[in-house]
Amino acid sequence: MHQLLESVFGQAFSNPILDTRHDSAQLTFPAGGMPSSANSKSAGGTPAPLKLAMTTDSYVVRPLFFPGGDIGSLAIHGTVNDLAMSGARPLYLSCAFIIEEGLPMETLWRVACAMRDAARKCGVQIVTGDTKVVDKGKGDGLFLTTGIGVIEHSQTILPQNVQPGDAVLVSGDLGRHGMAIMAVREGLQFESAIESDSAPVVKPVMDLLQAEIEIHCLRDLTRGGLASALNEIAEAAGVGMTVDEKLIPVGEQVHAACEMLGLDPLHVANEGRFVAFVAAKDAERALAILRRHPVSSNAAFVGRVGEKSVPLVTIKSAIGATRILDMPSGEQLPRIC
Amino acid sequence: MHQLLESVFGQAFSNPILDTRHDSAQLTFPAGGMPSSANSKSAGGTPAPLKLAMTTDSYVVRPLFFPGGDIGSLAIHGTVNDLAMSGARPLYLSCAFIIEEGLPMETLWRVACAMRDAARKCGVQIVTGDTKVVDKGKGDGLFLTTGIGVIEHSQTILPQNVQPGDAVLVSGDLGRHGMAIMAVREGLQFESAIESDSAPVVKPVMDLLQAEIEIHCLRDLTRGGLASALNEIAEAAGVGMTVDEKLIPVGEQVHAACEMLGLDPLHVANEGRFVAFVAAKDAERALAILRRHPVSSNAAFVGRVGEKSVPLVTIKSAIGATRILDMPSGEQLPRIC
Repeated sequence: MHQLLESVFGQAFSNPILDTRHDSAQLTFPAGGMPSSANSKSAGGTPAPLKLAMTTDSYVVRPLFFPGGDIGSLAIHGTVNDLAMSGARPLYLSCAFIIEEGLPMETLWRVACAMRDAARKCGVQIVTGDTKVVDKGKGDGLFLTTGIGVIEHSQTILPQNVQPGDAVLVSGDLGRHGMAIMAVREGLQFESAIESDSAPVVKPVMDLLQAEIEIHCLRDLTRGGLASALNEIAEAAGVGMTVDEKLIPVGEQVHAACEMLGLDPLHVANEGRFVAFVAAKDAERALAILRRHPVSSNAAFVGRVGEKSVPLVTIKSAIGATRILDMPSGEQLPRIC
Repeated sequence: MHQLLESVFGQAFSNPILDTRHDSAQLTFPAGGMPSSANSKSAGGTPAPLKLAMTTDSYVVRPLFFPGGDIGSLAIHGTVNDLAMSGARPLYLSCAFIIEEGLPMETLWRVACAMRDAARKCGVQIVTGDTKVVDKGKGDGLFLTTGIGVIEHSQTILPQNVQPGDAVLVSGDLGRHGMAIMAVREGLQFESAIESDSAPVVKPVMDLLQAEIEIHCLRDLTRGGLASALNEIAEAAGVGMTVDEKLIPVGEQVHAACEMLGLDPLHVANEGRFVAFVAAKDAERALAILRRHPVSSNAAFVGRVGEKSVPLVTIKSAIGATRILDMPSGEQLPRIC
């Protein structure tokens, strides 16, 4: 149903910006007919249009509060992270809320404060919004956030720009957000609770750009995890790629929880992790920059892009065997982000 | 509940842009720390930052298709109209869909095509989006649209800018959208169906700006109709105002339907109508410009802003009596836009 929906709207609305299918749309101003008085000049004297990124996402996570976060801060982090995946600096958010009649005001206030604090931490302002109240039983707490950020770099950060030889970096250990939610829902007990990785990744991305790391693509590892991201990018770029399982950071507890539930940590959603495709020459330097930031202190090189070929993602397992890393089939975990 | 919600989020997120409580947020770029290479210069040589407007709204109208429109084109019109209320030229939209499992694909395709056609007509591109599928019975067709437009004028169009002596203009006959929906739902029969006024009002607004009409405030007359808009603006500007009932255009069928159902046409929602507060000196010229466009061919002068005083809206009735025009209390009509 979800794929069908995407195809209906994708087909009906098809245009060059939408068709890039990136985490955020890249917009250029002035666009179509702005008066010349608003034209801008670059330092060199040639016109330099303003580039913005725009993204929209909806959040329906249950429970509303979970170890390491809540639906409000998650919505902020998810949106600023989507913008960061274009290398955009997030500036403004709009938030829409669809709330079920009878939701306790105390709960709402807690969520609103968490959003406010997350927005402040991310340096973004919530500038407009909308609220709708729906009958009990209809849509019990849905958060929609749209963000705008400014693109101040001149790189092309798009799935289509991934190139043979690129280094594949992940920004930290995988699977914590999904397993934190799952553990609460399934009542799993560990020595210490698995905490969601929900966090903004804007700062490390801005630092990569500042250092002029040649970035070809960035993608946050939300729904579908690393496996989805790699397959989608391989498909868009028309390249194969290989990752090495033993290089991919996964925490012990997440590993244990995944085994218990028969899940693959590479399929599990994260909310503060991304994959970066960078030019091989810059891989070491990029890792050093990422590791300076707490949110990406466990960044790791995990694989490499192969030649232009069948867009297949292969994984070298811990024992040395090679297999195809598939897309997760179906919805592994509903209402997780 | 709805007012409580607004107050929770309004208080938690308070910032100068959000606090204007206008139909769309007005954003200025470069904002906070953009590199100087992206600075722009106006014709006169002084820096002219790019100004954008941003707005978000959700649409839950039932039925999905109604005389004169459907939920898809309504979402587009509603969003471009909100942008036009800042005098912004709409450029880009993001659309999010929350669809109930099992909605026929044919229905979705019809709505998607209506959205595409409406977007084309309005000169906007749908550049990003999101789809979520929810269980049957949860949120049966919710459309969220966020729009960005560019502000190319230098006027201050805000409720707070309404001034004593301003002329109050409405752009056409009132109440058609609300009564079209109501008639379908209640099975009311008229000689010919009441058609929704759902339409973009961007062109007449752009023309007013082009002609340098001194506009102090614009507001579209959606939920709560003219009565809500006037009361909200009176409150924000700290002024009284008086309108004349016999000058306010209301169609015969709408009038009849309202009488039958005990509704006040000034409380009923419109989706292609707005109120303009313009300097008295420009009122005649503004009306002439509005009347050139089919969507605002029935534009009318309906009243005048009084002195800075108690923010009371009074209405002179057809028989000459004067009464207070109240805000509609409660939700007159659920799921109408």
